[in-house]
Amino acid sequence: MNKKGILLLQTTTPEQIKMLQNIAPNYEIVDGFTKEAPDFPLDDIEILYGWNGKIGNTILHSPSSKLKWVQIHTAGVDFVDQSLMKEKHILLTNSSGLHGKVITESVFGMLLSYTRGIVGAIKDQPLKKWGGRENIMELQDRTMMIVGAGRIGIEVAKLAKAFGMRTVGVNRTGKSVEHMDVIIKQSEFIDHVGEADVVVNILPLTKLTTYFFDQTIFSKMKKTAVFINVGRGKSVNTIDLVDALEKGQLAFAALDVFETEPLPADNPLWEREDVLITPHISGLLPKFNSRLFTIFEENLRAYVEGKELPRNLIDFERSY
Amino acid sequence: MNKKGILLLQTTTPEQIKMLQNIAPNYEIVDGFTKEAPDFPLDDIEILYGWNGKIGNTILHSPSSKLKWVQIHTAGVDFVDQSLMKEKHILLTNSSGLHGKVITESVFGMLLSYTRGIVGAIKDQPLKKWGGRENIMELQDRTMMIVGAGRIGIEVAKLAKAFGMRTVGVNRTGKSVEHMDVIIKQSEFIDHVGEADVVVNILPLTKLTTYFFDQTIFSKMKKTAVFINVGRGKSVNTIDLVDALEKGQLAFAALDVFETEPLPADNPLWEREDVLITPHISGLLPKFNSRLFTIFEENLRAYVEGKELPRNLIDFERSY
Repeated sequence: MNKKGILLLQTTTPEQIKMLQNIAPNYEIVDGFTKEAPDFPLDDIEILYGWNGKIGNTILHSPSSKLKWVQIHTAGVDFVDQSLMKEKHILLTNSSGLHGKVITESVFGMLLSYTRGIVGAIKDQPLKKWGGRENIMELQDRTMMIVGAGRIGIEVAKLAKAFGMRTVGVNRTGKSVEHMDVIIKQSEFIDHVGEADVVVNILPLTKLTTYFFDQTIFSKMKKTAVFINVGRGKSVNTIDLVDALEKGQLAFAALDVFETEPLPADNPLWEREDVLITPHISGLLPKFNSRLFTIFEENLRAYVEGKELPRNLIDFERSY
Repeated sequence: MNKKGILLLQTTTPEQIKMLQNIAPNYEIVDGFTKEAPDFPLDDIEILYGWNGKIGNTILHSPSSKLKWVQIHTAGVDFVDQSLMKEKHILLTNSSGLHGKVITESVFGMLLSYTRGIVGAIKDQPLKKWGGRENIMELQDRTMMIVGAGRIGIEVAKLAKAFGMRTVGVNRTGKSVEHMDVIIKQSEFIDHVGEADVVVNILPLTKLTTYFFDQTIFSKMKKTAVFINVGRGKSVNTIDLVDALEKGQLAFAALDVFETEPLPADNPLWEREDVLITPHISGLLPKFNSRLFTIFEENLRAYVEGKELPRNLIDFERSY
């Protein structure tokens, strides 16, 4: 019988590879990150560490593949075929928990760069223009509505509280969550969105959340509201958002994710003064590789002992 | 004997004027804000609410002036002649305490807009450029050194702690201060500045703090450090700062205040990619006038009863 393989599609150090070898001595550790065509039969890969669409889907779709587990490098898992994985009883674990703090930093960076006049100042600087002074918004006592009250949402709420804001979390169940003054159900969001000074989208992309933010929602926002998307691009209907900004139904949008990435040059968002575009960078964090490896390592130890994977196992019913 | 006057050099509402009249019925309330030449003898002005250089200095320097108290609208008081006020036994109160929260918001807006890649993204947007992805700095576990550990410094430190940072306060005495993990004396700052990932200047301008940040300090910073100035422009030697940036002795400067304001067009700071310039806006806050009035009102009630002014009385020995 052939040895089974662990295919690495993520940067690893020699020390990390040695550690994997020690944890799983019966497996071949296969380099698929620096080598495009690994010298190992793909059908014998049992574990994937990281993901790329080409090689990942080849393995996933092969009828004779022995694939049993994918440790993905992202928090969102919408880009893999979860129904097929479910059907084939393949486990999926993600990197959830790593990005909460940096995404929170990006949310407040985007928000404050608008509310404190920094966006305008950065645009004025090349013109050597000592710009105007405008009172935009003080965070103190303002309401932040956090749509998607999971781990990242809780981190965002914690900081919002530190800035003296009122926090409203939005989740499916309406069950109360740490650092949220109030929790409302996703189905009731539309009745409450008009209370929000800031709306932060951190929803994962599922069937239920696709185009969750559309004209119906935007038209109910405060005219002074700021919309921040650090979740998924496809949970926002971009045409509706542009239309709502055009009509003044909200004041500003700070967007890190888009329906299509990179954002096409002909997208009207680029030219709007009331839009801040960042190139899907809110989750970037230093030392990412060593932090991701810690999750993989802990899961792998459990895996080789036949135990349940302890960290970030995806529930295919919920898609996160 | 002539009635004494309270000269208003700050926006006030009719309700506020009525309230002043009630508190101080023996005084004439004189409009100096909308009228350039108040129809009241300036020498009979006993109280100034607000400040402008022209009328303020005329009154202050007049040998027969009855001026006894100036309630100024700013936190910094370096632009008034404090020695003359001291000599003439004129009281000076400022607006300290109003700006702490918004200045904190600006500090983190400026910092995060750099560390989260937002400054670059804003510059890329008009070019419709989906920019690069760079791991700059995560705030978690980084050291923020806060030079000037007064009320504003404490607010900044509180938020820095919420972001998981280590906080080092710098004050004259070395006496411990809330939300600061460590306090060091101003005189020892130079020995510790090399530990800082972020240095925030909130020093008031005094003889001791003029050009406090010079080549000696900048040359000891971490190459990756961020310098933020929301204090006073003259506490930084701009030529030394530009030189230090040019030499790579620090990574980035976010500046809200300058030696000369507006910043002259020929100043080399304007063209630097490693500098963020904002036009002295960090202290801007909504509802400023009603908040300032609350301080003035409370002080005035005490003043008419011959009591000590309870809020923000400046100690001329320390200049703040």
